[in-house]
Amino acid sequence: MSFTESDRMHGVSGSIIRELFKMTASPDMISFAGGNPSPDTFPMDEIAAIANDALLHRGTSMLQYGFTEGFPPLRETLKSYYQKKHGFPTENDDLITCSGGQQAADLTAKVLLNEGDVALCEELSFVGVLNTFRAYGAKLVGVRMEPDGMNIEDLEAKIKANPRAKLIYIIPNFQNPTGFTTSEAKRKAIYALAQRYDLMILEDDPYGELRYEGEFLTPIKSMDTDGRVIYGGSFSKTMAPALRVGFIVAEKNLMKRLIVAKQTGDVHTATLTQEICYRYMAEHDFEGHLRDIRRIYAVKCKRMLDDMEQKFSPAITFNRPQGGLFVTAFLPEGMDAWSFVQEGIARKVATVPGVAFVMDQSVPSNAFRMNFSMPSLDQIDQGTDILGKLTYEWCK
Amino acid sequence: MSFTESDRMHGVSGSIIRELFKMTASPDMISFAGGNPSPDTFPMDEIAAIANDALLHRGTSMLQYGFTEGFPPLRETLKSYYQKKHGFPTENDDLITCSGGQQAADLTAKVLLNEGDVALCEELSFVGVLNTFRAYGAKLVGVRMEPDGMNIEDLEAKIKANPRAKLIYIIPNFQNPTGFTTSEAKRKAIYALAQRYDLMILEDDPYGELRYEGEFLTPIKSMDTDGRVIYGGSFSKTMAPALRVGFIVAEKNLMKRLIVAKQTGDVHTATLTQEICYRYMAEHDFEGHLRDIRRIYAVKCKRMLDDMEQKFSPAITFNRPQGGLFVTAFLPEGMDAWSFVQEGIARKVATVPGVAFVMDQSVPSNAFRMNFSMPSLDQIDQGTDILGKLTYEWCK
Repeated sequence: MSFTESDRMHGVSGSIIRELFKMTASPDMISFAGGNPSPDTFPMDEIAAIANDALLHRGTSMLQYGFTEGFPPLRETLKSYYQKKHGFPTENDDLITCSGGQQAADLTAKVLLNEGDVALCEELSFVGVLNTFRAYGAKLVGVRMEPDGMNIEDLEAKIKANPRAKLIYIIPNFQNPTGFTTSEAKRKAIYALAQRYDLMILEDDPYGELRYEGEFLTPIKSMDTDGRVIYGGSFSKTMAPALRVGFIVAEKNLMKRLIVAKQTGDVHTATLTQEICYRYMAEHDFEGHLRDIRRIYAVKCKRMLDDMEQKFSPAITFNRPQGGLFVTAFLPEGMDAWSFVQEGIARKVATVPGVAFVMDQSVPSNAFRMNFSMPSLDQIDQGTDILGKLTYEWCK
Repeated sequence: MSFTESDRMHGVSGSIIRELFKMTASPDMISFAGGNPSPDTFPMDEIAAIANDALLHRGTSMLQYGFTEGFPPLRETLKSYYQKKHGFPTENDDLITCSGGQQAADLTAKVLLNEGDVALCEELSFVGVLNTFRAYGAKLVGVRMEPDGMNIEDLEAKIKANPRAKLIYIIPNFQNPTGFTTSEAKRKAIYALAQRYDLMILEDDPYGELRYEGEFLTPIKSMDTDGRVIYGGSFSKTMAPALRVGFIVAEKNLMKRLIVAKQTGDVHTATLTQEICYRYMAEHDFEGHLRDIRRIYAVKCKRMLDDMEQKFSPAITFNRPQGGLFVTAFLPEGMDAWSFVQEGIARKVATVPGVAFVMDQSVPSNAFRMNFSMPSLDQIDQGTDILGKLTYEWCK
């Protein structure tokens, strides 16, 4: 027999990146294709010590069913941290933990989006969350992306053109894949449009702590006077991804519904991994740890960008990100990056074609994403040598 | 502002049991209301040792992003275990891990159920999964439950009456809340009806290992020649619930879609907690551990049932479960157990009213659920003293 799939899942495919990984698994491949944080940034010994101590001395509470809302000490610690840093959660908000930043998007979509509702997304955007929206039957509408964030006129035009527009999805800092950061002026403009047209905003901020240059910007959630912004955060890049701990800040009544959605999804997030995040923040130098991570990545980021400036054909455009894990480069308008990426892979350097990050995968993209957190400095040098030559061949 | 919720979430409320817990939090309350496994069954020292060793010696692989399908050594171990025990997964099936047994239901509903599709459920059934189905906009239709499983005539009648019937949901062993186990004859009959009317089956088996008397029965999945049964398992009762590790066995093509749904939901389950389950199964005496758990619960189960037989009014009916964590008792037909339960709580013994487990919460239920895994033998004696008197007052 063959089963009949739900309508909402029709056309949702696995991540193209995942398929690409199979092509790039050969050991002599230099991979700029991944999106993983560097294991050098994981506080491994501290995590081992916390886990052991917690299980030996607080075993029952680590192992018995916990609260859907999350492990109370971690929730309290995160609340204090973000209140001090960004002024939220306010008294109108609540904060819960969840199973990685991805689940913040999943719960948001489940609670807010009917099938056919429109999510306005940065074009290009993170394929994982685009697929989350698709998996609830939402329609994705891309908004033109600029180095300082969404083009505001295009955003308003797309809102007007889509009466079922419900949610704006934005990665405000060092966006995946572009590396672009939305300026404060545009953050205010996006919030103002959300107010004017009564839309919700999902502000997905996994990279916010990873700033290597320039000033930290105010989250849109900090401007949220009427509870329309859902802020999603993650420990995946500040502690370790396989802990699967993230968090959500949202207005209290909305949060009650997100909690019910989470209860029906996975009951609660594993307690041991929440304890690890909690005690690392409470008992270790979390700020110092973040500075160490930034120092590690700043060097790699600069090397990748300097190499690209020096070695890539001037026909290739890109912007220097001030943080995060990625930079996206663009072939001349009208070129399809997919064949460029395939030729790179044939020469043993893997990148991700822009088609992985678009709303409509039938339209070619001239973009390709490069990751600098995983490769070594030598690999960055060698890989950009090869890609540099390729850009000159491609853009003769 | 107030947000507009998705249609699918309308009317999905949090678990009544959760609300009840707030009423029963006083320290002098004897609680038969919980559903937690006893912490005496958690292999705490072994878990601490595994976690510490894994993080110290395999840190990177414990902390870096893992596969959506699950941690490979755990998947392989589970495949061997269940192939030996139950003959699945077959070559047509695959097995993945997931974030607790609850997520097996969540992914199943996401991939299979359109809004308005009908899930046929045991009346009474586990509220957590009923809410999962509700949260995808499915319609729940209850099938009359008997001590040996669903009434087969009623199941067929309900299938015929509901052209959009899509899924049969069954907890085959020591069902929550009733404690009933579906007989082998009825398992075959349910599978035959699923074949005749082309329905899928979700076989949710968190209690299968917890048999204290009688013979282990064959899962429906073992009879599944055409890939219509999704089998969900869990480590919540055999290791510890807060690890949040479960697993799913399903036909390969369906599994591909469940994997995509999981990828959009939480990317993957925490690796450390999967490693704990894997190494406990591989390096410790898992079968011996299961025997220990059964020994602990068998005593409590027998005490609860003997006490009830001895102390409850003969007007109260119940069946002796041969395993699991629960027994449900029934007041005489037509009585509403909710006021009985409230009076019990006033006298400091908490149980859960049947209304928490019904399809239509506006219809009263004469059932109340009692848990025997958490209370001590003394608490079982004291609590049944009080409830026993109450049954005589109630059924004068």
